[in-house]
Amino acid sequence: LSHNDEDTFKILIATDIHLGYLEKDAIRGNDSYNTLDEILKCAKTNQVDFILLGGDLFHDNKPSRRCLHNCITMLRRYCMGDTPIHFNILSDQNVNFNTTEFPWVNYQDENLNISIPAFSIHGNHDDPTGAEGLCALDLLSASGLVNHFGHSHSVEKIEISPILMQKGKTKLALFGLGSIPDERLYRMFVNNQVTMLRPKEDQDEWFNLFTIHQNRSKHGPTNYIPEQFLDDFIDLVVWGHEHECLIAPTRNEQQLFYVTQPGSSVATSLSPGEATKKHIGLLRVKGRKMNLEKIPLKTVRQFFIQDVVLADYQDQFTPDTPQVTKKVEDLCYAKVTEMLEEAERERLGCLLTPEKPLIRLRVDYSGGFEAFNTSRFSQKFVERVANPKDIIHFLRRREQKEDIKGQTEAKYTAHSVEGLRVEDLVKQYFEATEQTVQLSLLTEKGMGKAIQEFVDKDEKDAIEELITYQLEKTQRHLQARGVTTEQDIDAEVRAAACMGNRAEEVNVAINRAKALRLERGDEPVDADLSRELALDSDEDSVPFPPPARGRGRGGRGRGGRGRGRGELSYYLSQIKAH
Amino acid sequence: LSHNDEDTFKILIATDIHLGYLEKDAIRGNDSYNTLDEILKCAKTNQVDFILLGGDLFHDNKPSRRCLHNCITMLRRYCMGDTPIHFNILSDQNVNFNTTEFPWVNYQDENLNISIPAFSIHGNHDDPTGAEGLCALDLLSASGLVNHFGHSHSVEKIEISPILMQKGKTKLALFGLGSIPDERLYRMFVNNQVTMLRPKEDQDEWFNLFTIHQNRSKHGPTNYIPEQFLDDFIDLVVWGHEHECLIAPTRNEQQLFYVTQPGSSVATSLSPGEATKKHIGLLRVKGRKMNLEKIPLKTVRQFFIQDVVLADYQDQFTPDTPQVTKKVEDLCYAKVTEMLEEAERERLGCLLTPEKPLIRLRVDYSGGFEAFNTSRFSQKFVERVANPKDIIHFLRRREQKEDIKGQTEAKYTAHSVEGLRVEDLVKQYFEATEQTVQLSLLTEKGMGKAIQEFVDKDEKDAIEELITYQLEKTQRHLQARGVTTEQDIDAEVRAAACMGNRAEEVNVAINRAKALRLERGDEPVDADLSRELALDSDEDSVPFPPPARGRGRGGRGRGGRGRGRGELSYYLSQIKAH
Repeated sequence: LSHNDEDTFKILIATDIHLGYLEKDAIRGNDSYNTLDEILKCAKTNQVDFILLGGDLFHDNKPSRRCLHNCITMLRRYCMGDTPIHFNILSDQNVNFNTTEFPWVNYQDENLNISIPAFSIHGNHDDPTGAEGLCALDLLSASGLVNHFGHSHSVEKIEISPILMQKGKTKLALFGLGSIPDERLYRMFVNNQVTMLRPKEDQDEWFNLFTIHQNRSKHGPTNYIPEQFLDDFIDLVVWGHEHECLIAPTRNEQQLFYVTQPGSSVATSLSPGEATKKHIGLLRVKGRKMNLEKIPLKTVRQFFIQDVVLADYQDQFTPDTPQVTKKVEDLCYAKVTEMLEEAERERLGCLLTPEKPLIRLRVDYSGGFEAFNTSRFSQKFVERVANPKDIIHFLRRREQKEDIKGQTEAKYTAHSVEGLRVEDLVKQYFEATEQTVQLSLLTEKGMGKAIQEFVDKDEKDAIEELITYQLEKTQRHLQARGVTTEQDIDAEVRAAACMGNRAEEVNVAINRAKALRLERGDEPVDADLSRELALDSDEDSVPFPPPARGRGRGGRGRGGRGRGRGELSYYLSQIKAH
Repeated sequence: LSHNDEDTFKILIATDIHLGYLEKDAIRGNDSYNTLDEILKCAKTNQVDFILLGGDLFHDNKPSRRCLHNCITMLRRYCMGDTPIHFNILSDQNVNFNTTEFPWVNYQDENLNISIPAFSIHGNHDDPTGAEGLCALDLLSASGLVNHFGHSHSVEKIEISPILMQKGKTKLALFGLGSIPDERLYRMFVNNQVTMLRPKEDQDEWFNLFTIHQNRSKHGPTNYIPEQFLDDFIDLVVWGHEHECLIAPTRNEQQLFYVTQPGSSVATSLSPGEATKKHIGLLRVKGRKMNLEKIPLKTVRQFFIQDVVLADYQDQFTPDTPQVTKKVEDLCYAKVTEMLEEAERERLGCLLTPEKPLIRLRVDYSGGFEAFNTSRFSQKFVERVANPKDIIHFLRRREQKEDIKGQTEAKYTAHSVEGLRVEDLVKQYFEATEQTVQLSLLTEKGMGKAIQEFVDKDEKDAIEELITYQLEKTQRHLQARGVTTEQDIDAEVRAAACMGNRAEEVNVAINRAKALRLERGDEPVDADLSRELALDSDEDSVPFPPPARGRGRGGRGRGGRGRGRGELSYYLSQIKAH
């Protein structure tokens, strides 16, 4: 794709900027602000057509005054100015931008001189609250600094209307869905309550870009959104919420779309995912072709994480070695120093990178070792590390696992034996309800009807809340056990899921969703084997082809989605010429 | 003054809008929003040159998201647009607008299309906080919707640089001082640490407008700002903070300036001051002439307050009358009904006025009467009154007063007798310190030096805080006694003040301030008897003359302010031609 082509959309892609994260920390307080500045400057330097944010621009639902002030100031500094905008919006903007009194894109406002429009969905950190359903983004939206889109006001049914954009000959349909509790959205997908509207005209000409902010990795049986749930007419999904930078698009072979996961631009935890080198993306779209250039962020604080299993150092010490704890501490000191040296080498010449890196050493001291005094250890690195107080994380993996299993089983037994209090009865009721709901997936009436029955009892909110509460509690329960690696969580979740046969139910749900898609007239995904690929290469970028459409799938061919949904599946607004 | 004159500034004046006040109240929740809408609409209808706000635009230091969203939305709706602006700013805007990265007036920003610039100082409700010293207004400032001015960043010394404006031949110097704790500002005035800078050139041609947000009525010996403290070159003071609408300018015969007190636009208490009919002002300034038109606010909820002294109804009942409490309740019922009928008559045809008025009946039941059950009483008016729960306010004035005096004396005695705890010793120390500081006013070294001595001990903040704490505590103490009328508070304050001879000290302070003004070369205020008055009349408006300057007081005549302050007294920035 040639640069600055009049038919090429240039889009800066970023998610999870978490503005305001640790803003009171003396060392790290400005990290999130510095990186937003870098991101916006990058957008300006690259003369992008627009910025696309995948949620969690703010770390806090109610950002501090300083945080809002910084954000407003930076947006005004970088996104306002005389640079002309080269694309038009063809869709009904009253539908696209439904959160303010000014339901039109900011750059078309006669009173604002916007040089780079920013489009953002909300994340789970900056989600809408209160009777008005406003989120922090809406303050930026009301001032005309950001275009907040993808906010569904219904909790039962979602229709996603794309922002239809045209630049030269390229047609881009931008779909967005702001963060929704995963379980709820999961259920809505399963119950066929999520509809993506598409333009009727020239259906094959649109590049379909979808931005979502949900769990992508499986945090629980229904506590994530399987990629398979998403409509397969999508070309590229920009997946927010997941903090690991996996920005190079991966192809979903079943759905035939690509997924890019830009990851956070500031580490909000000291987990391995945050240690991956952080990037933002420069997406180019021309016709149906696309290309994503990875842009490394220079202001991001370095983060090094390493695991040490003490039992692996039998040649040096065992729990019985004299002064073993001192030896362990020395080993850790050496490891941390090593990481610091690596950080320093890497940082050479990078003037924008903060001097003190984040360091995490996870020490598995299973097998009878003792933890040493971490406060004394921290003291040694206070001048060199950004997080001196929590460098060392001791964990005892194997023993703990057994403990958890024991406890879990004990808990499950207790429930049917002990004398129950009222709240226990309520819990039991909902556990039973949940089972019914889940099991009903296997029956003809489906989950939708099962829930509807409860909803009809006029206790919609209460039930919804309690179910969500129960599901979340179970998950917190598992996470609270100090189980830190992803494998562990997965194992635990699987174990828990097996008790209610949930793992299978999830598969059933996925298959059901697929079946529904087939029912409404879509072709089976595997049948689409012929692809016309458009390859494009670029140094330090990830070339990849867009998933082309199979024969006979375009236009009218996808018309009859059948069974009362057909009409809704199409975007009915008139396409306006500008 | 002819309307729409090319030399006439038209300024909409309002203060204490208290946006967000009681926003969660089912009945009154939208009152503050409706009135801001009315005010902004009025500014637009009258095609004013600018809006001047005297502080407390927001009721809460941290306004809710809804509140900020509403405010941003209304400002964008009414203050942006194509109407051209007809005045220029001649002063150094970097000095005038020092709270954002965009230190220039919003209407000169190339990226914003402002039709009505709004200028605001901050009040005590929306004052700057945190390490950055930002207030809610600064969010509006950063987004370019309001011009926040009058924010002094020093707590020791204040220099007020005016925004110098010119429209046609009229020159307007707009001075502003955002809210500062009264005691602190009082002390700064006394210590000669408040300087108002004036343009060197054409000093006599400027109309000097000063906006302040402080106690105007005496809430304590040093807990207000005497008008005499303000420089007498000022022509008009717009006084915020005081909620009673006394918008018709009153002339200060000593200082020879006028003071307009627009008052709040929403009642935030059920006190008599809030019951005065609420107005905003349309100020016209042409050359040195001015005229203030009162504009009644239509969206303000009616508020009626009435006092009943039960002892005055001896012909109807006494405490010994059978079923006297029932008779009292009937009397109150009749009074409230009467007020409601009056409210209804007044409201006839006023479609914008909310239906349910605020009603307060203060019942003095001194002399052995008993209070009746107000919750049952409230129930009767729940459909007709906006504040059914607190219509009746029982008070027993006379007995209470005696109680207070007894208690106060007891308290003062106890201090020197009882065994003291550490905190009591600290209190005693500061009480003594305060006396010293106050008394030192009478000595040559002056209050400034006395304070300086404490400051030099490196305990500046601690001492400042403790003194403020002590003063505020004393005042709260007095207010907490259920003493509600202003006269009562005044009496109490005077009584308390007498104990430390404070009343006299205040007079001393005022005289000292005057003396200082004389020292630095100003002519004594009473000497200025010759006035050239410019009268102007208008229906429903308050015509009044601007205080003209006496001979020999202009230009060079006021040059030598003497004693090391001379140079600072002049506004040194170059006057730029636009």
